[in-house]
Amino acid sequence: MEKAFKNLVKSNFPFLSTGKILVAVSGGVDSVVLAHLCKNAKINFSIAHCNFNLRGEESDGDEAFLLDLADALDVEVFTESFDTSAYAKDAGISIQMAARELRYNWFHQLSAALHFDYILTAHHINDDLETFLINFIRGTGLEGLTGIKTENEKVVRPLMNFSRKEIEAFALENKIQWREDSSNASSKYLRNKIRLEIIPLMEEINPQLLNAFTQTQSHLKESYDLMEDYIGLLYSEIVSKDVYGYRLKIEVLEKIPNTRAVLYQLLKTFGFTEWNDVYDLLQAQTGKMVYSGTHRLIKDRDYLILTETPSENTRKDFLIPEGEEIVMLPLGKLSFESVDKIGETGPHIAYVAKDKLVFPLILRKWQKGDQFHPFGMKGKKKISDLFKDNKLSLPEKEESWLLCSSNEIVWVVNQRADGRFAVTDSSPDILKITYSL
Amino acid sequence: MEKAFKNLVKSNFPFLSTGKILVAVSGGVDSVVLAHLCKNAKINFSIAHCNFNLRGEESDGDEAFLLDLADALDVEVFTESFDTSAYAKDAGISIQMAARELRYNWFHQLSAALHFDYILTAHHINDDLETFLINFIRGTGLEGLTGIKTENEKVVRPLMNFSRKEIEAFALENKIQWREDSSNASSKYLRNKIRLEIIPLMEEINPQLLNAFTQTQSHLKESYDLMEDYIGLLYSEIVSKDVYGYRLKIEVLEKIPNTRAVLYQLLKTFGFTEWNDVYDLLQAQTGKMVYSGTHRLIKDRDYLILTETPSENTRKDFLIPEGEEIVMLPLGKLSFESVDKIGETGPHIAYVAKDKLVFPLILRKWQKGDQFHPFGMKGKKKISDLFKDNKLSLPEKEESWLLCSSNEIVWVVNQRADGRFAVTDSSPDILKITYSL
Repeated sequence: MEKAFKNLVKSNFPFLSTGKILVAVSGGVDSVVLAHLCKNAKINFSIAHCNFNLRGEESDGDEAFLLDLADALDVEVFTESFDTSAYAKDAGISIQMAARELRYNWFHQLSAALHFDYILTAHHINDDLETFLINFIRGTGLEGLTGIKTENEKVVRPLMNFSRKEIEAFALENKIQWREDSSNASSKYLRNKIRLEIIPLMEEINPQLLNAFTQTQSHLKESYDLMEDYIGLLYSEIVSKDVYGYRLKIEVLEKIPNTRAVLYQLLKTFGFTEWNDVYDLLQAQTGKMVYSGTHRLIKDRDYLILTETPSENTRKDFLIPEGEEIVMLPLGKLSFESVDKIGETGPHIAYVAKDKLVFPLILRKWQKGDQFHPFGMKGKKKISDLFKDNKLSLPEKEESWLLCSSNEIVWVVNQRADGRFAVTDSSPDILKITYSL
Repeated sequence: MEKAFKNLVKSNFPFLSTGKILVAVSGGVDSVVLAHLCKNAKINFSIAHCNFNLRGEESDGDEAFLLDLADALDVEVFTESFDTSAYAKDAGISIQMAARELRYNWFHQLSAALHFDYILTAHHINDDLETFLINFIRGTGLEGLTGIKTENEKVVRPLMNFSRKEIEAFALENKIQWREDSSNASSKYLRNKIRLEIIPLMEEINPQLLNAFTQTQSHLKESYDLMEDYIGLLYSEIVSKDVYGYRLKIEVLEKIPNTRAVLYQLLKTFGFTEWNDVYDLLQAQTGKMVYSGTHRLIKDRDYLILTETPSENTRKDFLIPEGEEIVMLPLGKLSFESVDKIGETGPHIAYVAKDKLVFPLILRKWQKGDQFHPFGMKGKKKISDLFKDNKLSLPEKEESWLLCSSNEIVWVVNQRADGRFAVTDSSPDILKITYSL
């Protein structure tokens, strides 16, 4: 195995020979063997060990063992102690998830602070098989069956082509000491039940289970890649991005086969759960919406519009004192300028008789019942009707600003000015207000 | 369950209420329950039972039980006895595969002869789960994980949404008798090992395993469908068909991502096993080939050409007696006509001085070393050089015919005539030979 490892480093991971490496070592056989293999391959590495304080004296014994190991290998060692149970309770996650989060957070902190180029973990093919089965038993999709995701480009798993059996054989052959995790001996954890009960039964049926699994994984990854290529292709035909979010073109979605599956792939990272409702939006009336925890999908004529669900934060009003020159908005900005006469015009510019204004001006979002006196028109008009005339989508309505003087609307920004504040021949001061992105 | 079944028939399988149905009943709880459910749902059905003669008296007992069941349900019953062990031995396949083949062959014969519209089997979700795990343990790809394939549009599996547990509960509740298969009680067969040992362990981890599995299957099927849609799209860009077989355009294959995976998907049904060699063909010299049992993939300049491996059959020579008017070839035909003078010309027509010919003419394929005297040229030329000049691909060379008089080439059909048999002013009879598709 030592030779195989050296060849592997040479051919697949040449950067390990030149970089500064951090090896994660729990004290179990896999990671201890990894440390020995790194030493034999003359890799420049340090050891990082987490004490999760989950098994009392045994955890402390692991830590002591690690200090001895580092001493014997003559490498630097970092240890850190965590109150894993408390962290899990606070975060409302499982102990195993908590340990995972704590471990990787600390590894990344260490490697940032001390300039490690790569973090090595001792994951091997059996870990992948166990993850496959855990995900399968819980219910999953193709993504969940294609194996452990590498956290980060910095994390390298050089033992991925070795089996637990090979690793243990190497340890015994070379009289390498390691620490048995007492939780390994019981079926206390899900992973152990799979490792100690289910996988051995599968190996009775096929002694070459790990090879078969490696093949299966590689086939599934190929299929997943092809599906991703296809979704990438469709993405460019279906999705466009604007300042409000993403627009999905319904015409294209309805033309392709397996629309439901495509919608799922396009939207899977946005937290939706009611996929039937999402699919039904295609046929729904304009204005219908489906919410996820963070996002909304809105039917708007020929499109589905995906935006973040607006937070209270984005709805706060701006107060604009006299003399203010620029107001930055979440999207774009307003500039205020005193001018002598009316020049360039357009919906993005308003000229206002300054003496008619009450400062500070108020810049706020639309509310139900808002009305104004459109410039050039007799009488009042509902803002909602103006929006309708302009065919605004819901996110566009939500992002529309009303510039107000006291409780009167001066300008529906970027759309229409109010006649009551229009400049006349007798206006002493003209304020030019410009909206730009 | 009875109500659920009736609703299912009404909503998903309305054709079962109107058609003439054959229900496959082994005597086990699943199929006996299916027969009872069909009776209760007033479906017009007959029963088919196979005696595979694998369990001696027990098999005969099953058959007797079936006759009683049909009697009690007042439906027609067909039984057939098979020497399954001998069939398996002859065909070199497993007993289970042999039973499967014999069963479906007979069902289809029966339904063709007696005009059954549909064949019902009692497969349920647990069968699918077992198949998934068998394929997984042996090593497979996405296709192997997406479940039992329906043999045929005629075969319907109305219990697919029910679990073994529900079916057994229904049988007990309704005091339905069935036959226990003694092989079920042991771990004799692979499927039983999975059913009785592995799945119960998985259900200890997740009691909702079957629901989770149904979800997983549906996700995997969606992914598979998307991948197939993508391959269909690429197919139209990459593959063209001509009389020699399929041409795959290398330029497109090299432009897309995951070329290897795409090649696999395009060619997977043609029996190739050496996928590295297939992939390497893209960069190989023209003329390089990879063989499967039935097909060849040939690198030919800008294309990979897929053709059937020629059998001895397609290489047989034709003897053409004097006076023959039409000779049918595997691709196209030759017509022979006596004419007064030379008319329309082209590579697909040859005019020959009939008095110079020795009958019967021989129509044969090219052999190494073949030479001729090209019309309009001094001296001899190798046929292989003519092919090279004409830029023929290997299948085109193989499909080229040489029309010969004794051991001299008269015409390289559809390419070039030989000068030695050219018509002169003194030729008494002119033979016009035309090649057409």
